[in-house]
Amino acid sequence: MNKEIKQKITRNWFKLLQDVICKDIQKLENNKIKFVSKTWNRNKLKDEGGGEFRILKNGKVFDQVGVNFSEVYGKFPKKIKNKVPGTSKSSNFWASGISVVMHMKNPNIPAIHFNTRFIYTSFGWFGGGMDITPCIKDNKEKKILHNELKKMCNRHNKNYYKKYKKWCDEYFYLPHRKEPRGIGGIFFDYKKDNWEKDFKFVSDLGITFKLIFNLLINRKNKKKWTTKEKELQYIKRGRYVEFNLLYDRGTKFGLQTGGNIDAILMSLPPTAKWN
Amino acid sequence: MNKEIKQKITRNWFKLLQDVICKDIQKLENNKIKFVSKTWNRNKLKDEGGGEFRILKNGKVFDQVGVNFSEVYGKFPKKIKNKVPGTSKSSNFWASGISVVMHMKNPNIPAIHFNTRFIYTSFGWFGGGMDITPCIKDNKEKKILHNELKKMCNRHNKNYYKKYKKWCDEYFYLPHRKEPRGIGGIFFDYKKDNWEKDFKFVSDLGITFKLIFNLLINRKNKKKWTTKEKELQYIKRGRYVEFNLLYDRGTKFGLQTGGNIDAILMSLPPTAKWN
Repeated sequence: MNKEIKQKITRNWFKLLQDVICKDIQKLENNKIKFVSKTWNRNKLKDEGGGEFRILKNGKVFDQVGVNFSEVYGKFPKKIKNKVPGTSKSSNFWASGISVVMHMKNPNIPAIHFNTRFIYTSFGWFGGGMDITPCIKDNKEKKILHNELKKMCNRHNKNYYKKYKKWCDEYFYLPHRKEPRGIGGIFFDYKKDNWEKDFKFVSDLGITFKLIFNLLINRKNKKKWTTKEKELQYIKRGRYVEFNLLYDRGTKFGLQTGGNIDAILMSLPPTAKWN
Repeated sequence: MNKEIKQKITRNWFKLLQDVICKDIQKLENNKIKFVSKTWNRNKLKDEGGGEFRILKNGKVFDQVGVNFSEVYGKFPKKIKNKVPGTSKSSNFWASGISVVMHMKNPNIPAIHFNTRFIYTSFGWFGGGMDITPCIKDNKEKKILHNELKKMCNRHNKNYYKKYKKWCDEYFYLPHRKEPRGIGGIFFDYKKDNWEKDFKFVSDLGITFKLIFNLLINRKNKKKWTTKEKELQYIKRGRYVEFNLLYDRGTKFGLQTGGNIDAILMSLPPTAKWN
């Protein structure tokens, strides 16, 4: 299969997934509140791709949720070039991805993050993952998340879960506070074992994410919460902001490659507090 | 004058300034709300200095104000060593500083930032500045700030104001948004022309900061504001968070040298929003 076909299949899948996820989210909001969609181009003068980000705010379930799709291509700026694999001969790249960040109204429900991407320089690889950030401890919830992810991983390779769980724990960590961002999930990058198998794994993660967020939200959506718990959530969101601005590679990559600011910073919560 | 005396004079001045500033702030709050003070040590096992930070929250004038003093010494971690002047032969350092960040209740009054520091490796230099971040435009306020700073600078050197104003504009800038953090002020670093003169300049800046914040706060403290204006302030604070976590050298320096997390991140506003 040539690279154009791989790219097309992948970006079409990400685009489809964006639609499917948005539909689920609107259903959770009883279709009473709609996404606002914005398309953007990477370069106004020539075609270097762009994206569509969709955002829904002030719902009954979601304080804010963003569902981003992007497909960009062209040349890497010099600053980044040598930090990305496969760029020694050419700075040409192609990249497509979908990312979702959910900041919930109910502080009993964790913030949920999902992302998958396919990047092509002189070869292609997948990256992505999903993880959750609760502000109130819930061991059963943790079990549900990790069980579902483990089951999914095991459908593809018995080694994936352990490896990608560890990677997630190491990545989503705030060294200055010596604390994890949330309670983990899975994270992987530079995945280029076998395109068909990798694509299947990545698709399965998308479907599993859809299953998990519905599960986690419906489980506690009607649970009452106090203003004190809401404050805890705002403080936890402060940590989320610290991680994304101080450490997140995706954020830095986006800002340095001239991505759309609103799309990149969509991961930031609507409100955060520091205490 | 030997370095120990220079260091002692400077740290004593910063400590005195901390007291004087806190007194002014409490007076603005009619002494109805007190600072909470916390002292910290850089190293629990041996003496490497530390600091005292004071924070006042939920006042009638201030949403939050932090007044930090620190005096730290020891050896630079390898990561940083070669990024700091005067460290080619030894990684020993001594540093003392005072920093103040005011986040106001009234959105008509800008966030106000002030910092001065003296760092000694194989030689010593001063750095610092003050600048303000309004969320509502006020040309008269801008004039007052810059006039006072210009007058102060001119007492020391006719070239300082222009040079340090430019430095401030360049430093407090968000490249990803192509927008300045606020409306400037002055900023300087690596100042080591003549210790006595430099110290006089730095002391004068401290006194001028005291004058300016009282002036700016009293000017509009009784001015009415709307919830819409408060929202504007929260959004502007989001930019403040972006700058401090993405770009601020002081924040990175602090996090990498094992400074106190709460003291370093005291500059973050109590509440920030993204839209």
